[in-house]
Amino acid sequence: MAFRIDRQSRCAVIGYGSWATALVKILLENETSVGWYIRNREVLESVRRNETNPRYLRDVHFDTGRLRTSDDLNETVRSAEVIVLAVPSVYLKTTLEPLAEPLSDKFVISAIKGIVPGELVTVAEYVNRRYGVPFCQLGIVSGPCHAEEVALERLSYLTAVCKEPENARALGEKIGTPYISVSYSTDIYGIEYASVLKNIYAMAVGIALGLGYGDNFVAVLISNAAMEMSRFMAETYPAQRDTFASAYLGDLLVTSYSQFSRNRRFGLMIGKGYSVEAARVEMSMVAEGYYAAECVMRINERYGVEMPIARAVYGILYEGESPAASLKLLTGKLI
Amino acid sequence: MAFRIDRQSRCAVIGYGSWATALVKILLENETSVGWYIRNREVLESVRRNETNPRYLRDVHFDTGRLRTSDDLNETVRSAEVIVLAVPSVYLKTTLEPLAEPLSDKFVISAIKGIVPGELVTVAEYVNRRYGVPFCQLGIVSGPCHAEEVALERLSYLTAVCKEPENARALGEKIGTPYISVSYSTDIYGIEYASVLKNIYAMAVGIALGLGYGDNFVAVLISNAAMEMSRFMAETYPAQRDTFASAYLGDLLVTSYSQFSRNRRFGLMIGKGYSVEAARVEMSMVAEGYYAAECVMRINERYGVEMPIARAVYGILYEGESPAASLKLLTGKLI
Repeated sequence: MAFRIDRQSRCAVIGYGSWATALVKILLENETSVGWYIRNREVLESVRRNETNPRYLRDVHFDTGRLRTSDDLNETVRSAEVIVLAVPSVYLKTTLEPLAEPLSDKFVISAIKGIVPGELVTVAEYVNRRYGVPFCQLGIVSGPCHAEEVALERLSYLTAVCKEPENARALGEKIGTPYISVSYSTDIYGIEYASVLKNIYAMAVGIALGLGYGDNFVAVLISNAAMEMSRFMAETYPAQRDTFASAYLGDLLVTSYSQFSRNRRFGLMIGKGYSVEAARVEMSMVAEGYYAAECVMRINERYGVEMPIARAVYGILYEGESPAASLKLLTGKLI
Repeated sequence: MAFRIDRQSRCAVIGYGSWATALVKILLENETSVGWYIRNREVLESVRRNETNPRYLRDVHFDTGRLRTSDDLNETVRSAEVIVLAVPSVYLKTTLEPLAEPLSDKFVISAIKGIVPGELVTVAEYVNRRYGVPFCQLGIVSGPCHAEEVALERLSYLTAVCKEPENARALGEKIGTPYISVSYSTDIYGIEYASVLKNIYAMAVGIALGLGYGDNFVAVLISNAAMEMSRFMAETYPAQRDTFASAYLGDLLVTSYSQFSRNRRFGLMIGKGYSVEAARVEMSMVAEGYYAAECVMRINERYGVEMPIARAVYGILYEGESPAASLKLLTGKLI
């Protein structure tokens, strides 16, 4: 029988970036204790000693008496039933490398927005294939939500997504707080792709802004991106979904309009004339949208959905096409 | 037989605000000459003498040899076949008061986003009822477009809307320029209401920001506003429409996210604790959304569409409800 989430299920978060840190804060509002796998020994020590993550959301203090911190992945996984993955998708494979414990009897929640590089699949699909976790034991926590605003306890909305509504509800009870309002969905595939695609579109917005396009154009670009996203999901995975809902459109809006967005910033540099290589060095890390752009193009070879915006971003990032010329060409395809 | 727009139809713009000024600039790119009714004598003289509007978009220079400026409304209307209305909706009735010339044999284009105060109808409906202009001779020019960006010739998108596609095309030829990309639609009613509703939603965004809500919440608010807009249009005037298109969602995005937006600014003041009266005085003019909020509530009495956001704005503006309490209540109704 498939494992179900309930009040008693113990949670553990894998990762120590800003989003992982925010999720630990959120879970601690509802759970007696929360497991936290922190691979980096320096960060681990600092969390234990100073009760804060020294690198991200440093003003968030943890009641460490209720944290089960560890740098042993297997120990963390063993002592929890709900495993929350919150590392950048590019580090997912290496993070899980030491794993010897089976995941197939756990409930695995992906809080990762992205494609697993080199795999052409979303995180949920990857965990399903590689670790044999059935889809009914997979879930997603999706924004629109920036870790920085969670730290400030500014009202944000998360969507709890599981194939079965009761699991989504149970997950929602673990992440709902006075400053986190929870919505529910069963559309794992659609919401994962929405969060993958939005990073590509935020890059497009950054590129446009970097090139000097204005607010009007950006609004048109985002409207067209919403249509493109909607089209892609309808073709690749038809389902009843309202793509105006927060987990789709809302997430696209936050990422596209926020100055905090890494993908937008990456695009901005490209638009301003940085090479892809220079932008990568400058940001000391690759934005998720970079991998997403290639992956979506390759997946779409099977479907042939009309995706002029994703196509333009791909051409700029991977085929050395000129940002100015590509955007100029794109303007004629928007409505 | 209904009048059709064609290449030869002479255009005239009514109004001398920033949007009217931008439209004159746009039309002059395509037309041999453009009529311009400027009621204010001082502004009229300045346009004639200095070739610029002294109040708005002052860097835009006009080839006055091709302008037929006048402060006689009847003369302006008489010497044109396509009349473009571009005054704030609150001044529409008084602006048209001196009109003795019939409008019923003209093609009337509304570039006004709003409700005619006291009439509970959109501008197109008003012109139809009051001046007997048949719907097939009515059109709309809709954004997302800010006059300021037109002045800078930054690429913007306009939608030309007429009941008959050929008229929309002909209108599009008059407003398309290298920096204005034109889309087409026949959904007069939907697009008029989209531009009315968006002002209410931009106020809601302003109120939320004024109260200290963050980017995440704003994205959720706008997504829900898009759903609310979509629902209202589907119930009141069912039609095939893609509400993700620029004229609906794009326009909502520009108005909600732009710092230039009067409605957002008005809301911001309300959120920061100004009374409605004080905000009106401060802005020296009432934002369109103020009238729209009442009008939409009254129209919706007939339909009973669920509109929690528009309802909250109405309560704050007209029933003295507390912005903080109303928004708090609203947060529970968003998804």
